[in-house]
Amino acid sequence: MASATENKDKASLARPIGVFDSGLGGLTVFSEIQKALPCENLIYFGDTARVPYGAKSPKIVERYTMEIVNFLEACDVKMIVIACNTSTAIAYKKVKKRIKIPVIGVIDPACAIASEMSETGRIGIIGTKITVQSGAYPERLKAVNPAIKAFQKDCPLFVPLVEEGFTEGEIIDLVAKKYLREFDDKDIDTLILGCTHYPLISDIIARVSGPGVKIINSAEQTAMAVKETLGARGLLNKSKKEGKRRFYLTDASVNFIRIGEKFLKRKMQNIKVVKVWDILLQ
Amino acid sequence: MASATENKDKASLARPIGVFDSGLGGLTVFSEIQKALPCENLIYFGDTARVPYGAKSPKIVERYTMEIVNFLEACDVKMIVIACNTSTAIAYKKVKKRIKIPVIGVIDPACAIASEMSETGRIGIIGTKITVQSGAYPERLKAVNPAIKAFQKDCPLFVPLVEEGFTEGEIIDLVAKKYLREFDDKDIDTLILGCTHYPLISDIIARVSGPGVKIINSAEQTAMAVKETLGARGLLNKSKKEGKRRFYLTDASVNFIRIGEKFLKRKMQNIKVVKVWDILLQ
Repeated sequence: MASATENKDKASLARPIGVFDSGLGGLTVFSEIQKALPCENLIYFGDTARVPYGAKSPKIVERYTMEIVNFLEACDVKMIVIACNTSTAIAYKKVKKRIKIPVIGVIDPACAIASEMSETGRIGIIGTKITVQSGAYPERLKAVNPAIKAFQKDCPLFVPLVEEGFTEGEIIDLVAKKYLREFDDKDIDTLILGCTHYPLISDIIARVSGPGVKIINSAEQTAMAVKETLGARGLLNKSKKEGKRRFYLTDASVNFIRIGEKFLKRKMQNIKVVKVWDILLQ
Repeated sequence: MASATENKDKASLARPIGVFDSGLGGLTVFSEIQKALPCENLIYFGDTARVPYGAKSPKIVERYTMEIVNFLEACDVKMIVIACNTSTAIAYKKVKKRIKIPVIGVIDPACAIASEMSETGRIGIIGTKITVQSGAYPERLKAVNPAIKAFQKDCPLFVPLVEEGFTEGEIIDLVAKKYLREFDDKDIDTLILGCTHYPLISDIIARVSGPGVKIINSAEQTAMAVKETLGARGLLNKSKKEGKRRFYLTDASVNFIRIGEKFLKRKMQNIKVVKVWDILLQ
């Protein structure tokens, strides 16, 4: 009997962690989880048929998010990581309420580390239109430390620029200068990259922001939160073998593989195209 | 009896024309149809929940297109105008085969006028990634005149730049120069704007291309084709009153109204958000 329970436990702990994003930006988070927890089985889900989320309505982003959560639950994941700032900003609370397994978003980990790193408490946040409009970052920063002053700027062109490979050169430089001018008179000492695409241009953002501004990328911090949460709940995989990785997309996007391999710095295998919009509708 | 038939005919001719696009670019076409046929009832459909199409796969674009066609058929339209180059490039033939009412795409009208305007037969085409990859423009140009030499360049950043209002200034200039450099050694005398967003930056494209290059915007030409086809089939509305306009979107996008009114140069009313993805699935 003991051994049967043990086997059951083992199987249960071997269940994958589900990580999702509207497209490929979440691979920056996925990659850090892979580094922090090499023996965990991982599923990455990219909603490539409906990407991007950042300029759509909160209602539709919530709907898409819940469809993906349903899909990942059907994959029997042991934890869900919302590796998309827009989805986290709009639907994190709702997802947390809906499901019983642990859920980690990218906003809380970013706010925790930003609050720790900032000396002046004047923190900038850049993200998509609806992430900024949601006010989720200022709200969470204030929850961590009510004395924090948060300043936001939406940067809608950064995502298409990254997706199209404009990660260096005059054009991205000009766009970054135009957007970050917003902070010129705000005297921030810390800037949160509130979109999972932005780490790919963090050197440009850092240069334009100047040496006095620390750049916060939530990917690493999110991976740490995943590790801690799994550890605290006794959910870490006991296996010593390298975990399996599966990728689900809603569209067979060529961009995804081309840029995804750049994100992950390795070949991508086990890619499958799935539908999710009929799960809720049935 | 005669008057009943007449009334029935009248009702049938008053059926709307359905115009659709992935987002708001097709409003450039819609606007020209409005001008050319002020008494026609018009429906505009924008798939704002899944925009943009240009970097997605042909398979998903075909699926989305057929879903919209089904929706418009359910609205009892008398004609469908595919006011999206990507959808036209990928699915025009399939739509034409599937439905009995007339269908007009944006590619044939553009090719007809480009072929007429070009003196050297050396024609450039700019469009989204999958419009270019589909080869639809070179194929149609060759069908019009086998002697034409077609040169293509995909310009994926133009759509987000227009959507974000970067329609003038240094950034759009630099991007245009980068993309249009492709034609430097091609000696084209005509350039087709193979995306319904591009008319909004046609002055920049014209300036960068130089005075020797004629710019072809298919919107006006498509509206002419709509008028001719309706006329030839006896389908023109007999009413002398200004037609009704309805707008269907799949997402309540704020961008759509803000930029849409810029496209149409007038207030937008009768906007409704609908679902289309369950029509095919049921």
